[in-house]
Amino acid sequence: MESPKYVIGVDFGSDSVRALVVDALTGKELADDVAVYKRWIQGLYSDPAANQFRHHPLDYLEGLEECITGALAKIGPDAGQYVVGIGVDTTGSTPAPVDRNGTPLALLDEFKENPNAMFILWKDHTAIKEADEINHLAKTWGGVDYTKYEGGIYSSEWFWAKILHILRIDPEVREAAYSWVEICDWIPAVLTGTENPDVMKRSRCAAGHKAMWHPEWGGLPSEEFLVKLDPLLQGLRDRLFEETYTSDEKAGGLTEEWAERLGLRPGIAVAVGAFDAHMGAVGGGIASNTLVKIMGTSTCDVMVGSEDEVGDKTVRGICGQVDGSVIPGMVGLEAGQSAFGDVYAWFREILSWPTEVLGPEIGLTEEQQSALKDRILVRLTEEAAKIDPTDTTVLALDWLNGRRTPDADQKLKGALIGLTLGTDAPRIFRALVEATAFGSRAIVDRFRDEGLTIDAVIAQGGIPSKNDFVMQVTADVLGMPIKVVRSAQAVALGAAMFAAVAAGVYSDVSAAQKSMSSGYSKEFQPNPEMVEHYNRLYKEYLSVGSILGDTLRNL
Amino acid sequence: MESPKYVIGVDFGSDSVRALVVDALTGKELADDVAVYKRWIQGLYSDPAANQFRHHPLDYLEGLEECITGALAKIGPDAGQYVVGIGVDTTGSTPAPVDRNGTPLALLDEFKENPNAMFILWKDHTAIKEADEINHLAKTWGGVDYTKYEGGIYSSEWFWAKILHILRIDPEVREAAYSWVEICDWIPAVLTGTENPDVMKRSRCAAGHKAMWHPEWGGLPSEEFLVKLDPLLQGLRDRLFEETYTSDEKAGGLTEEWAERLGLRPGIAVAVGAFDAHMGAVGGGIASNTLVKIMGTSTCDVMVGSEDEVGDKTVRGICGQVDGSVIPGMVGLEAGQSAFGDVYAWFREILSWPTEVLGPEIGLTEEQQSALKDRILVRLTEEAAKIDPTDTTVLALDWLNGRRTPDADQKLKGALIGLTLGTDAPRIFRALVEATAFGSRAIVDRFRDEGLTIDAVIAQGGIPSKNDFVMQVTADVLGMPIKVVRSAQAVALGAAMFAAVAAGVYSDVSAAQKSMSSGYSKEFQPNPEMVEHYNRLYKEYLSVGSILGDTLRNL
Repeated sequence: MESPKYVIGVDFGSDSVRALVVDALTGKELADDVAVYKRWIQGLYSDPAANQFRHHPLDYLEGLEECITGALAKIGPDAGQYVVGIGVDTTGSTPAPVDRNGTPLALLDEFKENPNAMFILWKDHTAIKEADEINHLAKTWGGVDYTKYEGGIYSSEWFWAKILHILRIDPEVREAAYSWVEICDWIPAVLTGTENPDVMKRSRCAAGHKAMWHPEWGGLPSEEFLVKLDPLLQGLRDRLFEETYTSDEKAGGLTEEWAERLGLRPGIAVAVGAFDAHMGAVGGGIASNTLVKIMGTSTCDVMVGSEDEVGDKTVRGICGQVDGSVIPGMVGLEAGQSAFGDVYAWFREILSWPTEVLGPEIGLTEEQQSALKDRILVRLTEEAAKIDPTDTTVLALDWLNGRRTPDADQKLKGALIGLTLGTDAPRIFRALVEATAFGSRAIVDRFRDEGLTIDAVIAQGGIPSKNDFVMQVTADVLGMPIKVVRSAQAVALGAAMFAAVAAGVYSDVSAAQKSMSSGYSKEFQPNPEMVEHYNRLYKEYLSVGSILGDTLRNL
Repeated sequence: MESPKYVIGVDFGSDSVRALVVDALTGKELADDVAVYKRWIQGLYSDPAANQFRHHPLDYLEGLEECITGALAKIGPDAGQYVVGIGVDTTGSTPAPVDRNGTPLALLDEFKENPNAMFILWKDHTAIKEADEINHLAKTWGGVDYTKYEGGIYSSEWFWAKILHILRIDPEVREAAYSWVEICDWIPAVLTGTENPDVMKRSRCAAGHKAMWHPEWGGLPSEEFLVKLDPLLQGLRDRLFEETYTSDEKAGGLTEEWAERLGLRPGIAVAVGAFDAHMGAVGGGIASNTLVKIMGTSTCDVMVGSEDEVGDKTVRGICGQVDGSVIPGMVGLEAGQSAFGDVYAWFREILSWPTEVLGPEIGLTEEQQSALKDRILVRLTEEAAKIDPTDTTVLALDWLNGRRTPDADQKLKGALIGLTLGTDAPRIFRALVEATAFGSRAIVDRFRDEGLTIDAVIAQGGIPSKNDFVMQVTADVLGMPIKVVRSAQAVALGAAMFAAVAAGVYSDVSAAQKSMSSGYSKEFQPNPEMVEHYNRLYKEYLSVGSILGDTLRNL
C-alpha cells in the first residue's frame, strides 16, 4: 500500500489564518485549525476611523506555526511525516516594505512598532489620493494605460498606491525600504528561505491583478511612468521584479528550520502563493465556462478563459484579467459585487433602529434586543419566500456600496422604487434579494457579451450555505443551475490543491481538482416560470439603473 | 348692552358629528360636543373588504341632536336662546336615495336595513366600474367633456357613479328612489322642513365638485349623456336640480319641531350646506392668494381665485374648480395629496415589523410593543431634524398612494433613491418628509403656472399641530411662511361663520372671517439657505419623477 500523501492549504485571512490538512490522493479533509492574529485582535497598529488597517508580520509567523501544528496534532503524532507540500493563499493586495534581505521592516528592532513598516491590509484606504493620481496619470501621460488589464481603474487598496503613500508620509521607512512584497509572496519565501528580493518568486496573481504587471509592457509599469507619478519611486522598479510565477510552481523546498518548527520534513514543496479568491475558485471547482461566485458580504466572481476566448483582448468593465492568475495556461478574470450580504445587513440595521434607539426607554433587555436582531433576516427570508414575485411592485437597485462590476462606479447608489402603502418589510427584502441577483446577472451578461461562455455557476461562502431562498432567486434570475460547494473550507482546499501540484502528486491543477474536489452539497435549479418573469424584471432593473445613473452619482 | 349672538357650526365627519357653539361677534369658541354614529361604530351596513361604507340616516339625526344639545348644555341653560344661526358641513360626495318627500329610503320601514337605501360614504369604492364608464363616455361621446371642471377624471367616490351603481344592483331601491341627495343638502333641508326635492336647496360646492354641475352646460350633464351612460338614468335629471346655492344663503328657517328638540328658537337661519374641506378653509382664514392646506393622513388643498384670474378657464391637473364652492363670488379650487401623514405611518409600519412579528418570540409584552410603536415617529422626527440636509444622499417620491394632484395618476408609486450602506432610518424619514413637502410644492407651482397667485399658506389639521419639523421643512421647500390655525376645530368654525352670514350678523364671508377667526398659533418662516438647497433638490425630485413615471405605473 502506498504511503499517505498529505498536503496543507494555508489560508491567511483578515483576522486569522487557517491550515487545512488534506489527503492529496482522495481530497479527504483530515483536520483544520485556526489561529487569530494576536496583535490585530487587540486593535494594535490600526485606526478604523482613518481606514488604516495594518498586520504585524509576527502575527503571520506565529499564526502560521500555531495553525499548522494545531491541525497536524488533531490527526496524530506522525501526521507531519506524510505531508508532501504546502500551498498558501492570502488576502491582497497586502504589501509590506522589506530590507535588502527581504525582511519586513517591522521585524527589525527600530521599526517594530511602526504601522508603516507592516503589511498594509487589503482594506486599508489611506492611499485614496495616490490612487487618484495613478488613474489620472495613466489616462493622460500619453503612454500606455497601465490600468487596462485591471479594469481601467486603479484602487487605493492596491500595491502602488499603498507604496507611494507610505514613501510620502514616512521618511524613515522610505530610507530603509529596499523593496516591497505581497504577503502571498513573502510567506512561501520565508518557508523556503528565498526572502532575498532578488530571488523571491513573485505571484503572477498578485502582480497581474494589483501591480499593473503585464507581459505586454515587459512587466511592471515603466520607470518613466513611475517617476512621473512621483520621483520618490525612482529606482524602485529595478528592486522589485520582472518575472512572475503561477502557483503550480514551487517557490522552493521547506527549510530545516521551518520543518522543525512545524513538525514537517525539510525539502517538501512549497507552492508559489496567490490570492484567496483565486485559489478558492480552484478549490470550488472552477473550469472553463464556469463562473465561481464567492458570496458573502460582497461577492468575488472568478472566471477562467482560454487564450482563444480572451487572448490579449481586454474584457470591458471587469476588475482584472491575468494569464495564469487562477489556473496556469488560462486567463483568470476577476469581477465582483461591492455589496451582497451587506445589502441585507443594511436592511436589518434599518429595521433594528427602533429597538436600538428606544429599547432602553421601554425596558427591552440587551439580550432581547440582540435576539430580535439575530432573527430578523431569518424571518424576513421566510416571509419573502412566500410572496408571489408577480404580486409585488417593488424594484431595487443593489448599488448601496457603489458598483464594482460591470463598469466600476463608486458613485452609484441604491434605490427602492414602486413603493405603495401596502409595501411591507418582506416585500422590500424580496426586492433587495432580487436586486443582488440582478447585480450577479449583469456580471454574467457582461462576460457573455465579451465573448466568454458561462454555462455553470458554482457558489461558495457564507450566503450559499445559509440562505436557500437567496440562492433560488439567484438561480431563477441567472436562468442557470447553481451548485454549492460542499467544503466549508474551499479556499484552503484550493491552496492544498496547488500544494499537491507543486509537490508533483498531480501533473496539473485540473487533475488535482478531479481527485481532491469536495463535490457539491446542493444544487438550485431555475424555475422556468420565474426565469421568464425575471427576464422581464431584469430589463426594468437595467433600464431604471441606466436612467437614474447620473442622478444617483450626483446625490 | 347688545344681547349675545351665538352660532353653531355642525361638522359631519366619517365617524362622528361635532357641534361647535361660537360667539358670532367675537369668534370665541364657547363649547363643543361630539356624537359618534351609533350604528356605524358597530360596523353595521358596511363591508370594508368590499370597500362598502354606508351611513344610516338615523345616525346623522340622532348625532345631530345629541351634539348640539350636548354643546349647549356645557354653556348654560339659556344658551339656546342666543343662537341665531346654524351652519352645516359634511363629508362628500355622500349621496342617498330619497322618496317623493325627500325622505331617505332607509328611514322607511321597508328599507331600514338595506345599505343601498342609506348614505353612501365618500370613501365607498363599490362604483369603480361605473366611474370608468363615465370617464370613457365623457372622453368619447362627441359632446362636451362634463369632467372638465372636476380635473378631467371622474372618481368612483362621486355622486353619479354611486347612483348608477345602486340603480344597477338594487331594483327595489331603483323603484322607490324618486331623487338623490347629498348629506350636506339633506341636513339643512331637514332642519328647515324643505326636504321636498322640488324645493330643497342644493349645495353649489357638492354639485359643482362631484355632480358635474356647471352653468356652461346649464347645470347637470344632459339627459342625452346620462341615458347614453345607462338608460336606467332616464328621467332622473329632471327630478334632481338645476339651481345650486352658496352657503352664505339660508336654506330656510329652523322648524318648530327641531327648535324644540334642540332647545333653540324656531325660525333662526340655517345656512346652505357644503363640504368640510371647503368650510374648513374658510374657518382657517382663506382669502385671495392664500392656499389653505388641511394636513392629515392626506391633504386637502383649497384655493380661491377671482373671476379675473380663473373665469371659465380650466386649471390644468387640479381636482376641481367651482364658482362659489368656498367663498361666494370667487372660484373655489380643490387640490390635494393622496398621502401625507400616511407616508410617515407607512414607514412606522415598516419599522414596527420586527417587533410585531418577532415580539412574542423574544418575550416582548404588548404594552412594550405599543409603547415602541407610539414613539417611533417622535424619535425619527428628533433624529431627522438633526441631519444636515446637504449631508444625506436620499431622495424620495411621495406617491405611495398614487398622486391626486397635480395631474391625478393612481398608478404612480413611491420611491427611495440614493441609498448607501450608511443610510439610516432617520435619513430615510427625512427624505420622506422632504418628498411630501415636494408634493405640496408641485401643487403650488401648478396653481402658479396656471396664473393664480399664492403668497401665503395656512395650515390646519393633525400634522401642523403635532410636528414642527415637518412644517419647517414644508416652509423651506415652499419658500413661503406657513401659518398654523389656532383653532383645533377650524372646520366647524368655518360652518359657524357661514351660519353668521346666513343669519345676517355679517354681510359676507370675509367680514365674518375678520371678526370670528381664531388667529394663528404659530408661523414657520422659511430659512433662506434651506430654500436654496431645496430649490435644487426639488428639481431633482421633478426630474426623477418624470423619468421614472412610466416604470412606476407599470410595476
